[in-house]
Amino acid sequence: MFSAAAVLGPKGAFLLPIAARRSSMSASDTAYAVIMAGGGGTRLWPLSRQQRPKHMLPLLDDATLFQATVTRLQGLFPPERILVVTTAEQRAALQAQAPFIPPENYLPEPAPRGTAAVVALAAVALRARVGEHARMGIFPADHYIGRPERFHQVARAALSLAGRGYLVTLGIEPTYPATGYGYIQQGDPLGEVEGWPAFRVRRFQEKPDLQTARRLLAQGGHAWNAGMFFWTVARIWDEFARQMPAVHQVMEHLLAVWGTRRWERTLADLWPRLRTETVDYGIMERAQRVAVIPARGLEWSDIGSWDAVWALLPKDGAKNAVAGAETLLLNSHGNLVFGRQDGRLIALVDVRDLIVIDVPDALLILPRGRSQRVREVVQTLRERGHKDYL
Amino acid sequence: MFSAAAVLGPKGAFLLPIAARRSSMSASDTAYAVIMAGGGGTRLWPLSRQQRPKHMLPLLDDATLFQATVTRLQGLFPPERILVVTTAEQRAALQAQAPFIPPENYLPEPAPRGTAAVVALAAVALRARVGEHARMGIFPADHYIGRPERFHQVARAALSLAGRGYLVTLGIEPTYPATGYGYIQQGDPLGEVEGWPAFRVRRFQEKPDLQTARRLLAQGGHAWNAGMFFWTVARIWDEFARQMPAVHQVMEHLLAVWGTRRWERTLADLWPRLRTETVDYGIMERAQRVAVIPARGLEWSDIGSWDAVWALLPKDGAKNAVAGAETLLLNSHGNLVFGRQDGRLIALVDVRDLIVIDVPDALLILPRGRSQRVREVVQTLRERGHKDYL
Repeated sequence: MFSAAAVLGPKGAFLLPIAARRSSMSASDTAYAVIMAGGGGTRLWPLSRQQRPKHMLPLLDDATLFQATVTRLQGLFPPERILVVTTAEQRAALQAQAPFIPPENYLPEPAPRGTAAVVALAAVALRARVGEHARMGIFPADHYIGRPERFHQVARAALSLAGRGYLVTLGIEPTYPATGYGYIQQGDPLGEVEGWPAFRVRRFQEKPDLQTARRLLAQGGHAWNAGMFFWTVARIWDEFARQMPAVHQVMEHLLAVWGTRRWERTLADLWPRLRTETVDYGIMERAQRVAVIPARGLEWSDIGSWDAVWALLPKDGAKNAVAGAETLLLNSHGNLVFGRQDGRLIALVDVRDLIVIDVPDALLILPRGRSQRVREVVQTLRERGHKDYL
Repeated sequence: MFSAAAVLGPKGAFLLPIAARRSSMSASDTAYAVIMAGGGGTRLWPLSRQQRPKHMLPLLDDATLFQATVTRLQGLFPPERILVVTTAEQRAALQAQAPFIPPENYLPEPAPRGTAAVVALAAVALRARVGEHARMGIFPADHYIGRPERFHQVARAALSLAGRGYLVTLGIEPTYPATGYGYIQQGDPLGEVEGWPAFRVRRFQEKPDLQTARRLLAQGGHAWNAGMFFWTVARIWDEFARQMPAVHQVMEHLLAVWGTRRWERTLADLWPRLRTETVDYGIMERAQRVAVIPARGLEWSDIGSWDAVWALLPKDGAKNAVAGAETLLLNSHGNLVFGRQDGRLIALVDVRDLIVIDVPDALLILPRGRSQRVREVVQTLRERGHKDYL
């Protein structure tokens, strides 16, 4: 598992590992993780910013969410088979956070173009380095999974099913009628894969309104789309060819210049022309042979709001969650107090169910349950030209 | 009115003004203001601190409350007839805030010993400088009066009545059953003084509980004690002799050394031995010939809580009062947001009736109507040994 890196940096030398040359590749040898670590993110403002996106933050403990994601992949992928698609601005900081991942495995996008482009870039790298048969697991850099051992099990099952030519996604069991996630409707059963029942996907449903979300839950057979995907390079390459031909053309161009001096310029030239698109909408909704594995009991969260942060943090006896702040709480209940300043005291008196986010240049206060409205704060700041706070 | 200063500093030379020598002293020539500016104050934590008491703060506009108090006295007393009793620590800062008051008019206490001691020290200075016939108006340094022209009228009436040998206080018309103020019960009428009806005082009532406060309001004839007093040096000297003989003895000692080299040492020696006492309890409650002038329409506030600050500040259309902070208020109503930091944004979303006080080293959040509980915060910090935040 921990053989030398089978990697070729865009500018680097080609290093075929000894093990790969001698033996036929085992299934696990062809499985690569692709961490999507390029996003901006506004939902955790004022802690997260354009230049300090969520996955760069230590949110739940001392590790950043990116570091937690890398840690979670340990035992599933050796570091040399973890790719990180990111931006030029974030690359150095992320490398510093996970220095054991080979530097050439950090793939910077010239400009963010959505998750479809992220997948395309990773597919080019893996096809060039490993071949069409390589399998990819796509993982957001800023999610939480409370049961990593179960995550390993279901990811192995998903990689196995991907090896049979499916585009595989994990379905998270819904616990409430969420409007912040897309939904996946199960179709016909595909039988068990390594102990996990798998299904064809009948339909991807974009983020619904509350009424629709309630109906989906009542109807059953719907799971949240957690944005984790598994497939071979060959299968996703074909889907790009069929559904996103412009992207496919760029992929072919890039593949042709991989490992040459023309790589950087070609990438910088072609990338900005791509249309920004999600892989969900651009590929998955109309793809062929799509499967879902219901991934129960992962304790998954996308940490997509301050309410989610409150839910994940440990609480005191009065259900207050306090992180990184020196506090004095008098008769206060159910609050989230999130601070990031030494030598500063936050005192709450007779306060219930409030979210208090205190960073050096901004303070956000809103009731718990309303944290989706943080987007509107960011939007308003944008409209008013308050760039300093974005 | 604006003649040269008739002042003798403890170390200074005696300067009798020309006008005073030539003419007989008019009533106004013998009237002096004494500003009590030595307090600590915990009720406006975290803005006010032990080393930064309330009267040193710009709370309602750019002027500190001390400066506002001095400004309010303009037209009533010339600067050379304003004394400021303060502490050694605060003296320099206060002088800088009101440099037109002669330096020798700042009287530092070696140690704070309550308002009775403040009055005693001022009485010594005025008896030495002016004589027993001098009249004193005593004014807290940290109150608000919205109608200074009415204040001038009623203060002139009170000084006039003081000239007739009364200890005079102003009674503030109660607008709610406050438990934070002492009450003054009117007795027999003394007739009108310069257009203001005056009464003997039947009784001083210390801060009541809510039930008692309601009863006093229902009963009528009760006013709040605003801590403003008017009397001659002779009358208050006699009351000290009768009611606080230990203080009186110190006053006689100090009078004997006034203007000599022994002043500083005698003050430093005798002052700490005094018992801390208010002039209300130590003198007023059992004094003879005490009068009250009901002072309607002053728009007085002791600014004794963050709720009071909210009440005094201008509001936006949603009754939010914002001071000193850059804010973004979305669907938020009835809040007080008080900030003291540049380049910092305070965002409130869906928040009602909250007090948010944001200073560099502390943040306080509590519902409006609960600001009396700030004392408990300070008390708790004291118990926990958090000296940095006191």
